[in-house]
Parts: sequence; C-alpha cells; structure tokens
Amino acid sequence: MSPRHVHVIGSGLLGTSVALGLRRLGVTVTLEDASPAAALLAEDLGAGTARRGDEPLATDSVPELIVVCVPPDVTAAVVARALREWPTAVVTDVASVKHPISTAISDEGTGLDEEARARYLGSHPMAGRETGGPLSARADLFVGRPWVLCPTPATDAASLILVRDLARDLGASPVELEPERHDEAVALISHAPQVVSTLLAARMLDDEHNAASLAGQGVRDVTRIAASDPALWVQILAGNGPRVARILRALGEDLDRVATALEAIDEPGARRTVAEQLRAGNDGVARLPGKHGTRRNFEQVTVLIDDEPGQLGRLFTDIGAARINLEDVRIDHAPGVLLGLVEMSIVPEAKSALIEALTAKGWRIAA
Amino acid sequence: MSPRHVHVIGSGLLGTSVALGLRRLGVTVTLEDASPAAALLAEDLGAGTARRGDEPLATDSVPELIVVCVPPDVTAAVVARALREWPTAVVTDVASVKHPISTAISDEGTGLDEEARARYLGSHPMAGRETGGPLSARADLFVGRPWVLCPTPATDAASLILVRDLARDLGASPVELEPERHDEAVALISHAPQVVSTLLAARMLDDEHNAASLAGQGVRDVTRIAASDPALWVQILAGNGPRVARILRALGEDLDRVATALEAIDEPGARRTVAEQLRAGNDGVARLPGKHGTRRNFEQVTVLIDDEPGQLGRLFTDIGAARINLEDVRIDHAPGVLLGLVEMSIVPEAKSALIEALTAKGWRIAA
Repeated sequence: MSPRHVHVIGSGLLGTSVALGLRRLGVTVTLEDASPAAALLAEDLGAGTARRGDEPLATDSVPELIVVCVPPDVTAAVVARALREWPTAVVTDVASVKHPISTAISDEGTGLDEEARARYLGSHPMAGRETGGPLSARADLFVGRPWVLCPTPATDAASLILVRDLARDLGASPVELEPERHDEAVALISHAPQVVSTLLAARMLDDEHNAASLAGQGVRDVTRIAASDPALWVQILAGNGPRVARILRALGEDLDRVATALEAIDEPGARRTVAEQLRAGNDGVARLPGKHGTRRNFEQVTVLIDDEPGQLGRLFTDIGAARINLEDVRIDHAPGVLLGLVEMSIVPEAKSALIEALTAKGWRIAA
Repeated sequence: MSPRHVHVIGSGLLGTSVALGLRRLGVTVTLEDASPAAALLAEDLGAGTARRGDEPLATDSVPELIVVCVPPDVTAAVVARALREWPTAVVTDVASVKHPISTAISDEGTGLDEEARARYLGSHPMAGRETGGPLSARADLFVGRPWVLCPTPATDAASLILVRDLARDLGASPVELEPERHDEAVALISHAPQVVSTLLAARMLDDEHNAASLAGQGVRDVTRIAASDPALWVQILAGNGPRVARILRALGEDLDRVATALEAIDEPGARRTVAEQLRAGNDGVARLPGKHGTRRNFEQVTVLIDDEPGQLGRLFTDIGAARINLEDVRIDHAPGVLLGLVEMSIVPEAKSALIEALTAKGWRIAA
C-alpha cells in the first residue's frame, strides 16, 4: 500500500532524499522546512512542492504519511505538532536516536491521546553521506540499506505497515527493533565508533614532529568519519548519552589494560594480554558485514596504468569483453608519480581468467 | 650510486618486494630466509637467487648492501650477524620500530667495532598491505611512499647515501629522522591507531542483539585494520611500548572526559565538552595527507549502473573519449540488488564537463 501523498518536514540530506525517491515513484510530495529557502531549494531539485510559511499545503489532497526529517533535538516536538495538524495521517521520523523521541510522544505532557499515539512510530534509515544538505541528496540513498522501524506498544498495525512499505518503496530493507534495542545497537555500531575516530584524530594535534606526513591508509581509514559535522553529532550523542558512555567506559578499561601491558611488556603475561586483544579485534571485525553482506571473500588483481585519460576505458572495455564482472575497483595514485595502480576485487573463481584476459591484452599486472 | 649486488635477508612481503623491485632494475639479488622454503618461493617469484642453508652465496660478486627484512624481535641479531659476515657491506633493516635496534647495535655487548657500526643504519619504508607473505609482494610496493632513514651518530655518510639511493631506486621518497623521533611518529600515526581499531572491533563481540547487521561504512572503515596479523603486531607494539602507551593513556583520559559529559549531558558545559572534542577531531583529520598529498579537494559524481559485465567498460570508454581524467573510482554495490553505484572523484574544474559527457551518453547520474 503506497500512499498517494506524503508530506516531508525538513529539507536536509535525508528529507530531500526521501522526497526525491517518492517523486520518482509518482507519489505527490509536499515539503516544508524551518528555513523556507531550504524547502524551496529542495523544490528546485525536483523533490516536491514547498509549503509557503504556515499556509495550507498547495495540493488538493491530504497527506496520508508525514515523514519528519529535522534535527534530533526538535524531532519530538515536530512529530507531536504533525500528529495534531493532520489527524488522519501516519507520522514517522528518521532521527538516529529513537528511545527519547518515543518516550516524549508517550508522555502525558504532550496532550496526545491514544488515537494520535497509535499513528506514530519512529524509524531510522541506516544511510547517510559525509556531506549533508539537500544538494547531497539522492533518490537512491536508501537502496539496499537497513531501515529500522521502532513501533511503540501504542502504534497500530496499519501505521507500521505504511512505514514499512515506505522503506521498501525506497529500496531499503525494513528491520523491526524496540526503540531501546535500536539505541543500544547504534551506540555500538555508529555512535561509539564516531567518538573513537574523533578522539584518535584529535591526537594528531599533538604532533610535534610532523608525523602526519608519514601517515598511510590505515590511520586515514580509522579517522575518516572524524570529519563529520560536530553540530549534528553533538545532538546525536546527547540523545544516546548513557548507552554510548557505557561503551566508552568499557573501551577505556581495555585501553588501560593494553597500556599497562605495553609499559611493562617483559612482565609475565603482558605479551599475552596484547595478543589476546589483537585476536579479539580480528574476531570482532569478522562480525561486521561487508559488501554483499559478507567480508573478504573477494580476491584482488592489481594493474599498473599510466595516469591519463582513456586508460581506464580501455582497461574496463577489455574486462567487459572477457565477460568478467568486478565486485569493486580502487584506484591508487602514487603521489607525484604519473602512474596509477588499479586494484580490482573479484570472486576467487574468476581470478585466473581475469589475469589471463589482462595479460593477453598487454596490461601490466603488479607482481 | 646503485649497488650491483644486494643481499636480502627475509623473504616475507617486504623482503620479496625489495628484491623484486631491485631485480626489475637489473641488480643482482641474493635471498635467504630462516625458512629455506620461503626463500625458494621468493626465487620462484623472480626475486633473485636463494642461498642454500649456510653455504656461500651462489654468485661471483660480494653484496655491497644487505637489507634485513625479518620479524622485529630478531632484527637486531640478524643485523649484527650480517655486519660481521660481510665486512665491506652496508647493512640496513626495514623493521617498523627503530630505536631498540639502533640501541642494540650501539651496545658494547654485540662486540661490533666502530667501523662495523659505521656501516649500519635502520630504515622504515612506510608501505605494506593487509596480507603478508611473499605471494603478496610486488615490485611497486614502495612507489611514492615515504621511506624513513634513521642514521645513528656512528653511521658514515657513504652508508646513508647508499640506503637513500635504495629507497629512491624503488620509487620511494626518503625522509631522515632520528630513531627516537621515528618511533614517536609511528606510535602516533600507526601503532596507536592499530590498538584503537582493534579495541573498538573487539567491542563487537559484546553485541547481544546482532547490531552488527546494521553496520555501515563508518564502523567498517574504523575497524578495517583490526583484521591485521596479531603475531606481527605484538612484536611491533612490544618494540614501541612506552611511546604507544603514552598515547593510549591520553586517549583514555579523553574517553573518560567524553563519557562523563555524555552521562550527564544536561550539566552546564557538557555539550560544549563533546562539541569541542568533535571539532578537534575535524582539525586533527585535516592534518593527515590524502591522495596526491592533500585531502578532500576532489568532487564526486555518482552514476547508477546495472551490475553486469561490460557496463564499466562502456562507462569508462565514454569518459576517456571526453578526455576527462578521474582521480578515484569507488564501486558501491547495494547488497542483494542488481544495481551498482559508481562514485568518481575528479578535480572540481572538470565536474560539469563530466556530468555533461555522461548525460549526453545516456548515463543515469544519481540525483
């Protein structure tokens, strides 16, 4: 059951992406944003029709679904307002912390009755980009991503189905979780990693001898998400404080244990402590799904190319002609050198065929 | 001044890569390894001629340079032995911790005289791969990477020049650092990040509700290097224990401060503490060099393609025909969906030309 009319409140990355995806499916989409300019920009991008101030929506229809995509700290208030303004619509939000919002909506203080609460459930599409704003939005942002649905005991079945279908319509995989379980999960796989990456990156400010100039891909990967927007992340972390703090405390104990072992590495058991942590890290990373839902089941073939236009086209044409499908491609420029390494990932069964096809066409495979 | 004959001790990833690179330049290379099978495998890969046991090298010439590429815990002993066995050769090693080795070589206990010590300097090519062993080796492993040279006060100028030329011959950029400064630098940009990535990954073992299934690219990046070899990393960390521990202790204090703020986020100053850490993380990550020595100066264009052979060839042929050069390419498969997103990085000046060329050829650019 797809709605015919969806109203999206908030014209940032997520709101505009939801709107673009729905427009592509022919759904009527109306938009609003606390900043009218943001809603008008989203309208210009083809995301729907912007509401002018507090005027009624410029459509004949009444929205069946309201998607609230505003910053976490105002989400609960905007959800409550939407439940009141559209007394027949289902309301969901996409904020990345769910328990505080569902608690706020259940609170007697909001004055929402049982009927209104039945029309609300929180949700959280596990998608995003490093850059925010409507200009970064894309209709396929949610394709293949999990989209967590967090019904409360008050949510009725019809509302749950409508939001589940929204997730499916946008190409996502709906997953149901209680709000508290959701918040524990994202503390572990998103919020604590953000803090850890941030704190490690901040240590680079203590770099007296320009060690950063020696940095390789490892530290770049560990600190990549430290470039995220502080204003947004303060709100996310603040909304999930105790759960994130619990993980950080545990990590702090692990850090202390490893530091103690490293300070006296020749004491009995010290090397074992370090080795066991490293092995636990191996085991932990193996739990994370990779591309195609699995990890490290591809093999790599690396080709050396001249860093000039046309080379990649010739390379991938040769691969396509051999009917070989690549899983991933990475181009690695050697700084200051007119050479590039193209690392291709493929299923193991195809590796020898790929090497043969490339060699036959004269490509230089890295030894 | 390139040597005509180099002897490489240790046939792992680094030793075999050094040997392959030198062979490509026409240098005579001999090999040895504590495991004769490893040296013979490297010989089979074209890396040079393996020494049989303790027999003399199977060459007419005497090596001018010995490159020691053995595990960190035996490096000093192998360097000392090499200085004795070849009394005219310069000896270097490639271990990733330098101060303990240079201290050991300077130690009276080794019985090495001043003349022998003059022929030694440690070095450290900042290159590697997730997978070790001779089969992962490649002649271009060092191209464009920093290669740190760590002369001691005893090292003579001719030895320094020979090793500097080795680094240059293999395509690396030599950088001179005192052994202690080197060890401080790698503690910050390599060893502490390894521990942090490991400890965060190990936290995934505490995942009761299968949160890992919701994991996205962020946590995958932060934990990627946690998949590294524990046996090797125990040795690396053990060799640089106090310096790594100092950074871990400082990180632990940062973690505690953020955890305290998150546990009582409504206390005065708590949000500010979190925000300041996030901003410091932004500043820290900006210090790390990216591809081409700079960071985030490329723009992205994303194209949606069918996940089948030939599509990439057609795409890159179209781009090559438009004379546009890509800086990087990333292919992102949506799990379980027969679609792929190809994200291309280019210099900002070329972005509109790329979009125009792709649109003209009918490619679907992600909104």
